[in-house]
Amino acid sequence: MKQPFKTLGLVVKRHDPRAVETLRTAVMHLAPSGRKLIAAAETVALLDSASVTVGNPASSDLVLVIGGDGTLLHTARLLAPHKVPLVGINAGRLGFLADIRPEDLAPSLDAVLDGDYVEEPRALLQAEVYRNGEVTWQGTALNDVVVQKCDAGRMIEFETHVDGSYVCGHRADGIIISTPTGSTAYALSAGGPILHPRLDALAIVPICPHTLSDRPIVVNGNARIEIRMRDTESTNAQVVLDGQNHADVGAGDHVRISANGAPARLLHPANHDYYKLLRQKLHWGRDHESGLER
Amino acid sequence: MKQPFKTLGLVVKRHDPRAVETLRTAVMHLAPSGRKLIAAAETVALLDSASVTVGNPASSDLVLVIGGDGTLLHTARLLAPHKVPLVGINAGRLGFLADIRPEDLAPSLDAVLDGDYVEEPRALLQAEVYRNGEVTWQGTALNDVVVQKCDAGRMIEFETHVDGSYVCGHRADGIIISTPTGSTAYALSAGGPILHPRLDALAIVPICPHTLSDRPIVVNGNARIEIRMRDTESTNAQVVLDGQNHADVGAGDHVRISANGAPARLLHPANHDYYKLLRQKLHWGRDHESGLER
Amino acid sequence: MKQPFKTLGLVVKRHDPRAVETLRTAVMHLAPSGRKLIAAAETVALLDSASVTVGNPASSDLVLVIGGDGTLLHTARLLAPHKVPLVGINAGRLGFLADIRPEDLAPSLDAVLDGDYVEEPRALLQAEVYRNGEVTWQGTALNDVVVQKCDAGRMIEFETHVDGSYVCGHRADGIIISTPTGSTAYALSAGGPILHPRLDALAIVPICPHTLSDRPIVVNGNARIEIRMRDTESTNAQVVLDGQNHADVGAGDHVRISANGAPARLLHPANHDYYKLLRQKLHWGRDHESGLER
Amino acid sequence: MKQPFKTLGLVVKRHDPRAVETLRTAVMHLAPSGRKLIAAAETVALLDSASVTVGNPASSDLVLVIGGDGTLLHTARLLAPHKVPLVGINAGRLGFLADIRPEDLAPSLDAVLDGDYVEEPRALLQAEVYRNGEVTWQGTALNDVVVQKCDAGRMIEFETHVDGSYVCGHRADGIIISTPTGSTAYALSAGGPILHPRLDALAIVPICPHTLSDRPIVVNGNARIEIRMRDTESTNAQVVLDGQNHADVGAGDHVRISANGAPARLLHPANHDYYKLLRQKLHWGRDHESGLER
Repeated sequence: MKQPFKTLGLVVKRHDPRAVETLRTAVMHLAPSGRKLIAAAETVALLDSASVTVGNPASSDLVLVIGGDGTLLHTARLLAPHKVPLVGINAGRLGFLADIRPEDLAPSLDAVLDGDYVEEPRALLQAEVYRNGEVTWQGTALNDVVVQKCDAGRMIEFETHVDGSYVCGHRADGIIISTPTGSTAYALSAGGPILHPRLDALAIVPICPHTLSDRPIVVNGNARIEIRMRDTESTNAQVVLDGQNHADVGAGDHVRISANGAPARLLHPANHDYYKLLRQKLHWGRDHESGLER
Repeated sequence: MKQPFKTLGLVVKRHDPRAVETLRTAVMHLAPSGRKLIAAAETVALLDSASVTVGNPASSDLVLVIGGDGTLLHTARLLAPHKVPLVGINAGRLGFLADIRPEDLAPSLDAVLDGDYVEEPRALLQAEVYRNGEVTWQGTALNDVVVQKCDAGRMIEFETHVDGSYVCGHRADGIIISTPTGSTAYALSAGGPILHPRLDALAIVPICPHTLSDRPIVVNGNARIEIRMRDTESTNAQVVLDGQNHADVGAGDHVRISANGAPARLLHPANHDYYKLLRQKLHWGRDHESGLER
Repeated sequence: MKQPFKTLGLVVKRHDPRAVETLRTAVMHLAPSGRKLIAAAETVALLDSASVTVGNPASSDLVLVIGGDGTLLHTARLLAPHKVPLVGINAGRLGFLADIRPEDLAPSLDAVLDGDYVEEPRALLQAEVYRNGEVTWQGTALNDVVVQKCDAGRMIEFETHVDGSYVCGHRADGIIISTPTGSTAYALSAGGPILHPRLDALAIVPICPHTLSDRPIVVNGNARIEIRMRDTESTNAQVVLDGQNHADVGAGDHVRISANGAPARLLHPANHDYYKLLRQKLHWGRDHESGLER
Repeated sequence: MKQPFKTLGLVVKRHDPRAVETLRTAVMHLAPSGRKLIAAAETVALLDSASVTVGNPASSDLVLVIGGDGTLLHTARLLAPHKVPLVGINAGRLGFLADIRPEDLAPSLDAVLDGDYVEEPRALLQAEVYRNGEVTWQGTALNDVVVQKCDAGRMIEFETHVDGSYVCGHRADGIIISTPTGSTAYALSAGGPILHPRLDALAIVPICPHTLSDRPIVVNGNARIEIRMRDTESTNAQVVLDGQNHADVGAGDHVRISANGAPARLLHPANHDYYKLLRQKLHWGRDHESGLER
């Protein structure tokens, strides 16, 4: 039996007027249902509605995230320890995660609230920076952990190790450790493959590698991946989580990455079609319409 | 002073109803101008119009090619020795070569006929197959000369030589020698770069090469390129011109390719914008509209 | 407790003198051990040794395959129904599958025979061609099932479906369905990722796709993949298994691919290091030695 | 008639012991020839030889550059206004520019000094940063001008314009404008083609572009290229010349790049073979030796 979702948390990309407008529509639709609606004080202040009270979305039964994929990435990392399921609603631009369109808002929300949904567990990555054997920084990512150069024009040098085995030495702009969720984001631009969301795997994708045979590798989802910065001058680098949080790493530092802990819980209306989403986002088949010939 | 275009040749993709319809529209527009319109007998038969008489388009001052890029490739090769300029009109699907849209037909034709056009010389490739020192086959290509495997599942082995210098041994599905015109066709799918139409250059693009560092090379437009099939079992191959004409090549055969001879003469209305065409055909910028985020 | 390997089957690339020489060395090393050695009559004829008797390797406890990766692919498909484990020995050129070097023959064989080995199950693909709902051809592949054009210069048009869901329409030279084993073979040349052998996944890799966003997808190892040839003129195609067996497919045909059935059983000496093999085969790190700079 | 090279300038990568050792060998070889040898004071100090006097290599007839490609890039930019020819000698690691090996030092130098050389003009790029219509920074590059992100995890947004025409809007990690010289450096890692050194062309290569059809374009060597940073938040970027000099660019800034001015003059011994250099640096054909099979 699926859960009843008595209390709904509301999260919105507050400085995006379209997202706020969509939130208002959602509130108007949900208010009569008798469910409790809670949101952060700053969000409640935007709403001018008695239906939403101040509260921590982390303590709700379901969180509606209204904005872009960036908003959902941020929220998913914050709520990960609370195991609250999330639904993503975009504010006009279709997202891979925020995939409910404003125009489908009412029927999609009703479907989910009636239990007519599918739940997708999406692996979260844990990243830890080690310096001289001590953890100096750590964080969580839903899309990807990236280790990349930050000095102008300089490749960085590092090694990858998987499950304790040495894989390869790299000279590159950096490297992306991507979940299936992140495989359609930065990793795709860097030449990585698309990983189906239900595949338990991680992609290791070098960014502009110096050696042309230094190609993406896909490993098991439970792999422990370690990036070891070489002890050279050219190792001013950064570790970046979901393109949003970051820390500096330098010569000799190690970054350990693995998908331990509970996954994010993403809900979709039951008629969700991942491949349709891919076709729309990647413009597959567009050339048939417009007539690109060779 | 630009030439007056007294006689216009008409070439159409005869089995495409939209192309024939566009041809009829063109004839109705052109008939009152007093210009002489000529076409092959089979084309005249489609038209039911006294304005078009049977004649060889090769002897006209300008040929209107109505259809897709394939029709224009075919016509350009046929007319190359005659140095007649060509204008390409598509039949509903925008082409790289047939880039006048039916809805712009009248103003675009008027502009060209009034001398308000730009002429682009487009290099034609000459390919010759040598067996035991004898030429056994030859042909012309506007897009590309491709040497490719034809046996199921078998790579072919061959060497490339440019201007008499040995470049590289390859094991691959094949190799593409592309003009700038062809650089947005098959060569692009195989990982080649886009060459601006006014660049005097040829791209040498291996197809699925076994060695991952076997990458596209761009050489001068006047380069003499030779593909030498190695003397191994796995050398059943074909040489293919513009994806339309082909011949078999086997162990020890040489294929010599160069852009000698007169180029095809492609006319565009003066407001022609190559980069706009690229943006339309490659859907550049579409993600900004639809909201693909990372 | 690991199995004792009382009877050893011997398979060799018979027309490769180095392979036959390595086989002779193997036989000399194994004969004193008291194990029964069996091989096909044609192989026994090459050996001039009383130690090897004629028999079907399929009925042995372990098969030694001496040759290249091609020999091992062929043997693995043949022996799949018999569930006999295989060891691959190369004849001078390191293979991804035939990864025991002749110079390490004695210690490597001794390690395996003493039980000091790791067993890797490698998924086998089953491919079936459907025409009008009937299976017209079927076969097995260890590396990959490829559907590809066979007419000169013509793209083929087809759709992919995974687990009953429509994925995408393609215009391309073809498509590769690859196991992790095959991910370092043809699929890598076509732009696919490397899949770790222990990942239960399949890669779907288009070959020279017309749409540039038509990128490799990695799905679960138990996915049922269907390639549906579109009903157009340009659908003369072939389905090719491991680059070795093939059949024609045409307009409207469906090719169904899945990894059902028992996997091949590949044994490695316990000190086998997959990443080391990758480094050697892909020349990773070579540029550090030779000094490629940017 | 080729020039006599009476005065030779010596430039060395001073903190590389192998380069200094090679310089000493060169001096011993050249001293008896009666030519005047000059070098910077810091270089003379390393030499302990009466044969070399302090002087500005810019005023010599030929400069010997001993070190890696980085040393030659640096020297070529410095000497560009003086039109002095350069010869590159590597210090143990073969370079694309420093392509005379220490073991070939004597015969190669003798050949060049005897006039038995070929001269390759290599285009130099001029880059200028415009802010509010004013030039705020400028510099020269032999390999490439790169505009790239410098904030962690953030794509930058910009437009490219060529010869006054709008080409495309990009969201990417950055973009590389590369000469043929630079086409085997960073641009190759980012997916660009190899441009033959004698091709008068520039490659425009996006770095990890968000739109998958945003592919490298090759334009005429005399093209004027402009990168216009969009007026968004995410436009903290840098312009980097040859990976060595850089400046910050921000929202609304324009970077103009063109190959105006005199090219660098690179001399090679007459037996220089560009394709052989490519084969060595890119390990072409290595798999034939080591036996990579598919």
